[in-house]
Amino acid sequence: MIHVRPERFLQDLHTLRQFGAAGVGKGVVRPAYSHPDIAAREWLAQRYEEAGLEAHFDPVGSVWGLAKGPSLLVGSHSDSQPEGGWLDGALGVICGLELARAAQEAGGPPVSVVSFQDEEGRFGVTTGSRVWSGATDLKSADRLTDTHGLTFADARARMKHLAGGFVDYKRFTGFLEAHIEQGPWLHEAGEAVGVVTDIVGIRDMRICFEGEQNHAGTTPMHRRKDALQAMARFQTLIADRFRNVVTPQTVWTTGHVDVHPGSHSIVPGRCTFSMQWRDGERERLDRMEAIVRDAAGEVAADGGFSVSISDMVGLDPVPMDARMQAALGEAAEDIAPGRWRRMQSGALHDAASVARLMPVAMLFVPSINGISHAFAEDTKESDLVTGLRVMGSAVERMAVAFAA
Amino acid sequence: MIHVRPERFLQDLHTLRQFGAAGVGKGVVRPAYSHPDIAAREWLAQRYEEAGLEAHFDPVGSVWGLAKGPSLLVGSHSDSQPEGGWLDGALGVICGLELARAAQEAGGPPVSVVSFQDEEGRFGVTTGSRVWSGATDLKSADRLTDTHGLTFADARARMKHLAGGFVDYKRFTGFLEAHIEQGPWLHEAGEAVGVVTDIVGIRDMRICFEGEQNHAGTTPMHRRKDALQAMARFQTLIADRFRNVVTPQTVWTTGHVDVHPGSHSIVPGRCTFSMQWRDGERERLDRMEAIVRDAAGEVAADGGFSVSISDMVGLDPVPMDARMQAALGEAAEDIAPGRWRRMQSGALHDAASVARLMPVAMLFVPSINGISHAFAEDTKESDLVTGLRVMGSAVERMAVAFAA
Repeated sequence: MIHVRPERFLQDLHTLRQFGAAGVGKGVVRPAYSHPDIAAREWLAQRYEEAGLEAHFDPVGSVWGLAKGPSLLVGSHSDSQPEGGWLDGALGVICGLELARAAQEAGGPPVSVVSFQDEEGRFGVTTGSRVWSGATDLKSADRLTDTHGLTFADARARMKHLAGGFVDYKRFTGFLEAHIEQGPWLHEAGEAVGVVTDIVGIRDMRICFEGEQNHAGTTPMHRRKDALQAMARFQTLIADRFRNVVTPQTVWTTGHVDVHPGSHSIVPGRCTFSMQWRDGERERLDRMEAIVRDAAGEVAADGGFSVSISDMVGLDPVPMDARMQAALGEAAEDIAPGRWRRMQSGALHDAASVARLMPVAMLFVPSINGISHAFAEDTKESDLVTGLRVMGSAVERMAVAFAA
Repeated sequence: MIHVRPERFLQDLHTLRQFGAAGVGKGVVRPAYSHPDIAAREWLAQRYEEAGLEAHFDPVGSVWGLAKGPSLLVGSHSDSQPEGGWLDGALGVICGLELARAAQEAGGPPVSVVSFQDEEGRFGVTTGSRVWSGATDLKSADRLTDTHGLTFADARARMKHLAGGFVDYKRFTGFLEAHIEQGPWLHEAGEAVGVVTDIVGIRDMRICFEGEQNHAGTTPMHRRKDALQAMARFQTLIADRFRNVVTPQTVWTTGHVDVHPGSHSIVPGRCTFSMQWRDGERERLDRMEAIVRDAAGEVAADGGFSVSISDMVGLDPVPMDARMQAALGEAAEDIAPGRWRRMQSGALHDAASVARLMPVAMLFVPSINGISHAFAEDTKESDLVTGLRVMGSAVERMAVAFAA
């Protein structure tokens, strides 16, 4: 019987946040391959060894604690956003460490741990787990660059002295990832645990309206082809048309906007902007795509603009394994009765990559006020411990279920 | 009787466009204080001398051709936008040169010429004429910087070897400026000449909506405070409310937009954008300002944003001198009967600065398709010559009117 020890788990979580401590609340600055990130991974390797696991770095810097024989893999990532919170993926990594340690102490079931590298996408998107799962090949990944032009190849060379080969995925029966929710749903409902049903799919593109750059003093309004105004009309139009298609969980975002030439006194000739939407159902993502393309075309035709749409990046929704979900649900009902729910993950996680190789499941704990990717990110320690206990109970249930 | 010579005038215009020739159509790249700009000003000084004028550079690099005794000042500017047309202010400068030359040949009335420096606002706005007219003092102007951080003080030092003192404005009876329209009105109507009634006033500010930066996957739409969406709503709202206030000549523009942090996967927490409007009546500018401020406040209050508005830059409309307008109008009716109109200038010009010191007036020639501040800017040579003839006739009429 796995017996998790909350004080040890919390102690390790607090120790980990010393690596790259921002000095603002509990925040951390620990982007992939930074000095604090590498130091944290070396510390993790040492903790794995102390827990009776075999520590191992793979070619991209993901750090593994391997149990002997077939095992359940538990983990997440310990790199952070440029301005990150102390939990985020670190929660899942230390949760894995405590479960592996407690499992070693209990004589089973065997649990291995991982902290994937660059989940936060300094280079790609969930880069470490995507390379390991084969979603991206290492040669392509090596050409990725961060915003300063550093290549992934040069970044991972910083951990070359630690690196061994890739870990054979066949030794794992499944992958279990704990993470903060990053949204407000659990916090608003006063619930302690979310059992993830699906990781939503994403569609992401860049749209460019091209009108006529002109003098802002001498060009009458009726003669203008103002590309910024085209973008604003597009936003209004899609919000209106999405209304009968979306669910309360569906989201869409324009996060990046470039207005050319960007002068107070020049009517914008070109506006390029990002358009991203996420939903748990592939069919809805497709219907939204049709609305986006139609709306962009209509705005262009009505105003005499030309419109171009970039290649679309698409990640389909990833369903969590039914048996693992069931084990998490039973454990949650046992440990936090009435204080948990099934829910989608609106954010992408390493589990989405690993699902290419094996059954995966995820558990969420609340984010206070829904804040994440910010120094202010936090979760009540009682909720962290509840999450850990549900994970421990679920690991035992999975061992039984998988053996059956 | 002044007898202008069109072939000499056109020849000089074409020679001037060799300085900083873009190699694209007749376009020029001749920003203030660039090598081509300084070389062009040295060439102008030489042409002034050849025309029997005294060439003079002032401390900011405006180049003057001075007639003896009291004279009418005619000119504009020879610096260009980073991507400029061959005419723009160069037309007014060469028009001044030809009038001064023809006046010297005719034995009067005395005409002086000027090419003001940095009308295009590499540093400020109509910098050379504003410093000369006292609208900006030299010490403040010296602290202005261009987009690369070069100061006005360092820029004008490039012409230090040429510089004399400021010219005493009392030697001039008035200022007359020819310029391309930069808008489409004359071209669309098939007219050759516009007599300017007023230079419109400008209001210009930066507005900043601050909402909540958040994760684009996990933040439900109903919880968002998306600053970009606030900006889009603001655009819709003011367009609606301006409708009953504006005239067909009124214009408003958001030309610069900064969305923070500008990532595809982050709900924008902050959107800062420019808001500029122009009109010939001060009262209308004020009514529009009230609408802008109210609309920004309403969008902020409705969506839970905070809004901040920068200090406003305001330039009041500048009426052209009635007697000079009348002289231009009579000359236009004489030389291009039925093919001219009275009109506002939607763009700012050096004449607006000079109006602080003396009577001013302006004449426009058509811009083909309303294009300006672009290599494609052009005007039919027959229209250029008509403009020159109207200017010549007006100078004689003014000499009579001013002597009376």
